[in-house]
Amino acid sequence: MKVFNETINHQLSHRTIREFKDQKIPDEILETLIEVARRTATSTGMQASSIIRITDPDKKKQIAEVCNQEYVARMPELMIFIVDQYRNWNIAKEKNCFEDSIRTMDQFFASFTDACITAQNVVNAAESLGLGTVYLGSILNDAEKICEILKLPELTFPVVGLGIGYPNQNPQLKPRMDMKYRVFENEYVSFDNYLDELKDYDEEMRTYYDLRMANRRVDSFTNQVVTRLKNPIPKRQEILKAIRKQGFDFKLDE
Amino acid sequence: MKVFNETINHQLSHRTIREFKDQKIPDEILETLIEVARRTATSTGMQASSIIRITDPDKKKQIAEVCNQEYVARMPELMIFIVDQYRNWNIAKEKNCFEDSIRTMDQFFASFTDACITAQNVVNAAESLGLGTVYLGSILNDAEKICEILKLPELTFPVVGLGIGYPNQNPQLKPRMDMKYRVFENEYVSFDNYLDELKDYDEEMRTYYDLRMANRRVDSFTNQVVTRLKNPIPKRQEILKAIRKQGFDFKLDE
Repeated sequence: MKVFNETINHQLSHRTIREFKDQKIPDEILETLIEVARRTATSTGMQASSIIRITDPDKKKQIAEVCNQEYVARMPELMIFIVDQYRNWNIAKEKNCFEDSIRTMDQFFASFTDACITAQNVVNAAESLGLGTVYLGSILNDAEKICEILKLPELTFPVVGLGIGYPNQNPQLKPRMDMKYRVFENEYVSFDNYLDELKDYDEEMRTYYDLRMANRRVDSFTNQVVTRLKNPIPKRQEILKAIRKQGFDFKLDE
Repeated sequence: MKVFNETINHQLSHRTIREFKDQKIPDEILETLIEVARRTATSTGMQASSIIRITDPDKKKQIAEVCNQEYVARMPELMIFIVDQYRNWNIAKEKNCFEDSIRTMDQFFASFTDACITAQNVVNAAESLGLGTVYLGSILNDAEKICEILKLPELTFPVVGLGIGYPNQNPQLKPRMDMKYRVFENEYVSFDNYLDELKDYDEEMRTYYDLRMANRRVDSFTNQVVTRLKNPIPKRQEILKAIRKQGFDFKLDE
């Protein structure tokens, strides 16, 4: 590791921040984050993703309930990144184009990808300015409810939430597995005995101090995998149904 | 717009680079990009995404054919970001856990999101070092074929490709629509007449010089939307089938 600059220093010290100072993000910084979102790469130039900023405290509370994370209600800035084919659908209709191809999962995934990379671009901009961030995948604990709260029209769908603010905590860097298990050349590579391979990493995780669970030891990574698989969140299993309800067409039987 | 720093300057001048110098990326830079990938946020800490680096010229060519973009074969560095639940599935099995919940679309989307934000984190790191990048959503022109080329096992799936190298072109910044059409407060907002709203943007697009199409005028944005919808790529419509073939379970009928 010999290459450093300010951008990379920030990236290498990324931690999830869940507790923020009671300090508003200045408008010019918010505008900058939005401009960064605007300049993010977008699939075939379609710009088919959008952002809903949640400023209404009551809506923040409702979203926090879906997330099952009370701190979500206290986010200084809360953005929900969404799939948005609805705008282009309206544009097409105004041009007398009513192609159902906009409802395909192809379009959905293109938008989903756009929404994700836009979120990460905003994260990098925010962190470069000394802000902290937390991704909220938990908005998908109940995608239908989020659609309701945000009044999402057909052909839109929530992807990921992002909380942003000035950090009021300084968590330890979270241990991650060695990238030899995650980066391969030319074809996928699997290992014969992951429990053995990840023994040191498991130990590292056990000694990691997680601010969320200050009163108990953190479980090993491999135990966490099992715990996660044994405890699926019921409504999360209905994501495809929720996507279909928003007007996307799976075309599985053709 | 009053806030600038090196990270943000790079983000605001992001252009897609498709032509690169015949110059290898130094190992220490590649290692840094991988370390940035490692430090990227990951859903519930599961690290369920991976990267396949394509160094085999023959595989590059095969992927270029799927992408229908000959320059893909000439990428100095070509990374494919993938959904990877296979590693955690093996870990679980070694612990005598055989929960089918790993096959759910919930897990798939968590991994997909991880893969995307990792790709964008790598893009930001690369650009901060003077490298150029091109996203290759076109790998999904034939997802099954990509699975074959990369020998992807069950519970993995290609998400997006990324070409990286030293730029050998200096394209114009591509015009983007005003963010008032893409950023809303508390709920989705649609506009009554997009053709009217986007008139100036359409004009801006028409005068934009696209290096890919140097011999003809660029179409307006709203025309591009219609053209895109009228020309769906056949195999791209089969993405859900390809995902199912990799062992994910849609559970649509429960």
